[in-house]
Amino acid sequence: MATTFLYSIHRTACRSRQYFISQSNRINNAMDSHLAFHRNTSLVPLSFLSQAKWSTKGAGVKYTSYWTAGKSTAGRSRRGALLLAGAAAAVAGFVASVCHFQRAEMASRIPKTDEEEKDIAEKCKAFMSPPVTDIKVLQQRRGEMCTRMEMLIMETQAEFCKVLEKVDGGTFKVDRWERKEGGGGISCVLQDGKVFEKAGVNVSVVFGNLTEEAAKQMRSRGKVLKGKNGKLPFCAMGVSSVIHPKNPHIPTVHFNYRYFEIEEEDGSKQWWFGGGTDLTPMYVSDEDAAIFHRTLKGACDKHHPQYYPNFKKWCDRYFYIRHRGETRGIGGIFFDDLDSPSQEEAFSFVRSCAQTVVPCYLPIVWKHLNDPFTPEQKAWQQVRRGRYVEFNLVYDRGVKFGLATPGSRIESILMSLPLTARWEYMHEPAKGTQEAKMLEVLRNPKEWV
Amino acid sequence: MATTFLYSIHRTACRSRQYFISQSNRINNAMDSHLAFHRNTSLVPLSFLSQAKWSTKGAGVKYTSYWTAGKSTAGRSRRGALLLAGAAAAVAGFVASVCHFQRAEMASRIPKTDEEEKDIAEKCKAFMSPPVTDIKVLQQRRGEMCTRMEMLIMETQAEFCKVLEKVDGGTFKVDRWERKEGGGGISCVLQDGKVFEKAGVNVSVVFGNLTEEAAKQMRSRGKVLKGKNGKLPFCAMGVSSVIHPKNPHIPTVHFNYRYFEIEEEDGSKQWWFGGGTDLTPMYVSDEDAAIFHRTLKGACDKHHPQYYPNFKKWCDRYFYIRHRGETRGIGGIFFDDLDSPSQEEAFSFVRSCAQTVVPCYLPIVWKHLNDPFTPEQKAWQQVRRGRYVEFNLVYDRGVKFGLATPGSRIESILMSLPLTARWEYMHEPAKGTQEAKMLEVLRNPKEWV
Repeated sequence: MATTFLYSIHRTACRSRQYFISQSNRINNAMDSHLAFHRNTSLVPLSFLSQAKWSTKGAGVKYTSYWTAGKSTAGRSRRGALLLAGAAAAVAGFVASVCHFQRAEMASRIPKTDEEEKDIAEKCKAFMSPPVTDIKVLQQRRGEMCTRMEMLIMETQAEFCKVLEKVDGGTFKVDRWERKEGGGGISCVLQDGKVFEKAGVNVSVVFGNLTEEAAKQMRSRGKVLKGKNGKLPFCAMGVSSVIHPKNPHIPTVHFNYRYFEIEEEDGSKQWWFGGGTDLTPMYVSDEDAAIFHRTLKGACDKHHPQYYPNFKKWCDRYFYIRHRGETRGIGGIFFDDLDSPSQEEAFSFVRSCAQTVVPCYLPIVWKHLNDPFTPEQKAWQQVRRGRYVEFNLVYDRGVKFGLATPGSRIESILMSLPLTARWEYMHEPAKGTQEAKMLEVLRNPKEWV
Repeated sequence: MATTFLYSIHRTACRSRQYFISQSNRINNAMDSHLAFHRNTSLVPLSFLSQAKWSTKGAGVKYTSYWTAGKSTAGRSRRGALLLAGAAAAVAGFVASVCHFQRAEMASRIPKTDEEEKDIAEKCKAFMSPPVTDIKVLQQRRGEMCTRMEMLIMETQAEFCKVLEKVDGGTFKVDRWERKEGGGGISCVLQDGKVFEKAGVNVSVVFGNLTEEAAKQMRSRGKVLKGKNGKLPFCAMGVSSVIHPKNPHIPTVHFNYRYFEIEEEDGSKQWWFGGGTDLTPMYVSDEDAAIFHRTLKGACDKHHPQYYPNFKKWCDRYFYIRHRGETRGIGGIFFDDLDSPSQEEAFSFVRSCAQTVVPCYLPIVWKHLNDPFTPEQKAWQQVRRGRYVEFNLVYDRGVKFGLATPGSRIESILMSLPLTARWEYMHEPAKGTQEAKMLEVLRNPKEWV
């Protein structure tokens, strides 16, 4: 039955071979400049190119795939994927394009209950916008990791935005946008508020195909992956945020949690999680730093005693402005390529991290909400904002590769930049000042817990 | 006699082979990330690594070269270079390290007059600082292209700074700095003046050795160059400037003129000039654009009728913010790899361009000096400044490679960044406004003369 369904889709979805080839060349070029994105992005650029599309019309789901369209190997590939689904247990993932068919099939195999479907629909009501993937599709594949992760990132976005709105009194502008090549995103921005100069919280869910070369460089360990005709279907999603407050005594915060799935020729799947949360204060507060790091450590320790020390080091290494010889801020945690001990446990860790964003940051915001500040302190904040811009434009791989990719949504990539920044020639704080103390910490990262 | 002189230098200059090798590895790594600098730099980063040093003590000149130290081939190399000096006519260039010896020798062959020496010394008095190269050395090799170019860039810096000081009423801060690996620079910055928010004019003169791979990529045409043991002695120098005025009706200007020399194994030399001047207004003024472009065209037309049209196109292509789909400003001229019709004529063209900076820009500054402006116009300027930062940090090759190179002077590289900038999420001027008209021009470069 599933096979009959598949072939009927093939017929409606079929596009000309010519179109496929011209798109394919474009993808190869674009992906070359897009390699490391998932390893180190700080804002998820929704810009992976793909030949895959899907759309929902009315109650029915219509799948189209330029990749598998008209190819008789689709069935074989599907079978391979299904074999492996067992190994990945209850969270059998999906991979874009080819696995659209799997999803359709699996949906018919998972017993549905009205209650479970309602649960997803109910949760979606609390989001800043309907999720990127159609609610009906999420309900159909509700046990899969991409559904669970998409629900998590949507929840994280909503929770964080609502808490910030409460603090600020302002309202997030919500932009829902689609990516022509597959997927889309939801960008929430609160600009020039009472407390926040610029607060951005972005969700993205994209899918498509990677070249083998691109796929290899996507992973820290650079494992060689074998695709069908050199192409590997993938799916990527994440939530990311940067908050720039007005008061220089309230630190800037950034977080990003993401999930990636890729399917090889034989149907075997690679998946991994990445993410992190880090703080950029303008002034050192040992107490703030301890609150922030202790909360993160708590979330990490529940899962592995080495997570916090390892991911803290990784964070200091990644958020380093090499040409200045200083870190961007006082760090936090940063990890990538996390695919152990199991998909379930890795997801559970990422969920803990995502749920820690608010308790990490909000106590610090409340604490300094009404701190008085001088024009000099504001000017120092502006200089530090300049350094933030330098890191994001010069080093951040997510930003760099997003900018280099045609068709990416620039405004979502660059919403991490502050509203205002300043570059003073030869700026160096006087010895013994609070500003000099901050620099000292940025030049020599500390242990905070 | 010259040979005797050479060998006495070899003895004093000789350093251990071990030192040379460890330095050499460092250079290979650094140069890999430093390739395209001279083709497209907008601020000359004085960061080329080198094993060569020279210093002057008292009246005598002491040359040291790790490159040739202890090698018996120095004489052969020198002879090759001298053979070619004929082809390069009166402006026989020098190349760093090896040609320090040639310089010493040539100095003794060129008839000296007290008057000519005084001429250089007199001119230097008007500079913002003594030149990078010791005045006595400049006097000794006064006919050579590097001397003439160093004098030109120093003159250009002084002329421009003095005119801007007159307009602003403020004073440039002058920083003279040395580069450990060879050469140095003079950075002049006027910050938070009455008219100029930030004005930077930088001179740099550097020398050292390139790897063959690096040298190949230095030139637009990617010509294969053969070095001795894979190393090519080079010398590079330039003047560059970015002026950010306070009034949004006064445009930002940028210029950069540079000279590059490289010597191959057989002593043959490659040399070329590069440079350009371009304008970044916040509001379109056909009249300003015409003044600017017409003045540049006048300078170009004296040398070749194709220079202006070709270099105008090149400028629009280079100063393009790809991810925004807009140019940085309304262009001007940009060229590189200029090594024809002769060194003398190429230099003469570059001199014309350098001498055109003031007449290009100053009439526009005076014209708008007292233009009133609204807070909204100031905010628009800040948004455009943000785009300027994006171009400089994301695309400008000079900045990129400067930042990537250990030991470069970051403050001189980044002095091109404005004092203040702004990033508004989803900023788009209302239709029909002056701001929208400006964007229209940036999205569709125009012919102005």
